[in-house]
Amino acid sequence: MTLSPLLDSLITALQILPGVGPKSAQRMALHILERNRDGGLRLSESIQAVLTHVGHCRVCRAYCEEPVCGLCLDDRRDERLLCVVEGPADLLAIEQAGGFRGRYFVLHGHLSPLDGIGPSALGLDKLAVRLKDTRIQEVILATNPTVEGEATAHYLAQMVQEIDREREATAIQPQSDSDELLANVATPTKLVVSRIAHGVPMGGELELIDSGTLSHALVDRKPIPI
Amino acid sequence: MTLSPLLDSLITALQILPGVGPKSAQRMALHILERNRDGGLRLSESIQAVLTHVGHCRVCRAYCEEPVCGLCLDDRRDERLLCVVEGPADLLAIEQAGGFRGRYFVLHGHLSPLDGIGPSALGLDKLAVRLKDTRIQEVILATNPTVEGEATAHYLAQMVQEIDREREATAIQPQSDSDELLANVATPTKLVVSRIAHGVPMGGELELIDSGTLSHALVDRKPIPI
Repeated sequence: MTLSPLLDSLITALQILPGVGPKSAQRMALHILERNRDGGLRLSESIQAVLTHVGHCRVCRAYCEEPVCGLCLDDRRDERLLCVVEGPADLLAIEQAGGFRGRYFVLHGHLSPLDGIGPSALGLDKLAVRLKDTRIQEVILATNPTVEGEATAHYLAQMVQEIDREREATAIQPQSDSDELLANVATPTKLVVSRIAHGVPMGGELELIDSGTLSHALVDRKPIPI
Repeated sequence: MTLSPLLDSLITALQILPGVGPKSAQRMALHILERNRDGGLRLSESIQAVLTHVGHCRVCRAYCEEPVCGLCLDDRRDERLLCVVEGPADLLAIEQAGGFRGRYFVLHGHLSPLDGIGPSALGLDKLAVRLKDTRIQEVILATNPTVEGEATAHYLAQMVQEIDREREATAIQPQSDSDELLANVATPTKLVVSRIAHGVPMGGELELIDSGTLSHALVDRKPIPI
């Protein structure tokens, strides 16, 4: 409760942001009003612009304002690898980590039948169409290591295996017209499906790691080349 | 770095908010885009509305969208007490604490000659004019217990004492036209200046309290009525 109903509305509106309670919302509102009016204006305009112009990439469903995102258009990316993630934040985390040079597909969620989130809500029909492209040789399932993420990965693995059988049966030729790519995929290759590794996180201390992760790390142990 | 320049701008814009770094700004931006588009729109409009319409109350300098705020117009408040605070958040904190039924004056800062914040930036000329109204009998200095807040309180105390001498010398009659108020202030009363108490905060543990506060609490000890 301030002296200004408009300021009260702003404090309420700020609380839609994750991690913002009444106290920090008040601090934010007063900060905008007292110290950073220009920044506040830019923030307001930015929200409007994003809500108006940002949509899903037609190919990978990541957020972008063009019909197809820069990552899907970038022909330096490896077309043989397709990484499936739950959300755009996961895509960004993998990009920031570096090392992965393939393509993505963003589910925008995970399978959750109780909440009415089925395969079509995650764009799996779109993914299935995309996987018919025989240039894709491996699908990396990078859904979260949670119960829902694992269930989604399991469902996806089955779907990929089915598509692999279809691909072998029909042996569809790639639809691309670029010749150097055709060279790589002269014969339809087997579609492999993989799951990101579970194990102890780097820099973690064993005694602080949960038992599920620890047993995973032991089961999936790797021989050290000598 | 996302795939959408507009989304990137929003993530940058969100970082003007206090306590929001790149990671939480990204989470907030994706939250607005994915889960709460209506809330985002409301937030954007709210910021615009506040920046356009909210100004300072002509009397107490608190934020409000009317020329004079509801608190200054509320004639149930005690006109004899005037509480001077550094910012609107302090006013709200005192209001939420309850107990104080007087009026306010908001400085919007503290004296800081190195930053070029002098008496006029804090509206002290306005405060001086207001204190000439002999209905005001006590000025409570509720600036922060920091070096700058204490210095500001010291300056204000001297200013109030000067005004008190002027008031006694000139014996200005109240400018109000309401009779029942005139009754209270038939003769110009002495202007008292006070400072909010320093001491141990309620619910705190002595061993965790800094030594400055503790010695203050000992010096300002109060006899217990038996």
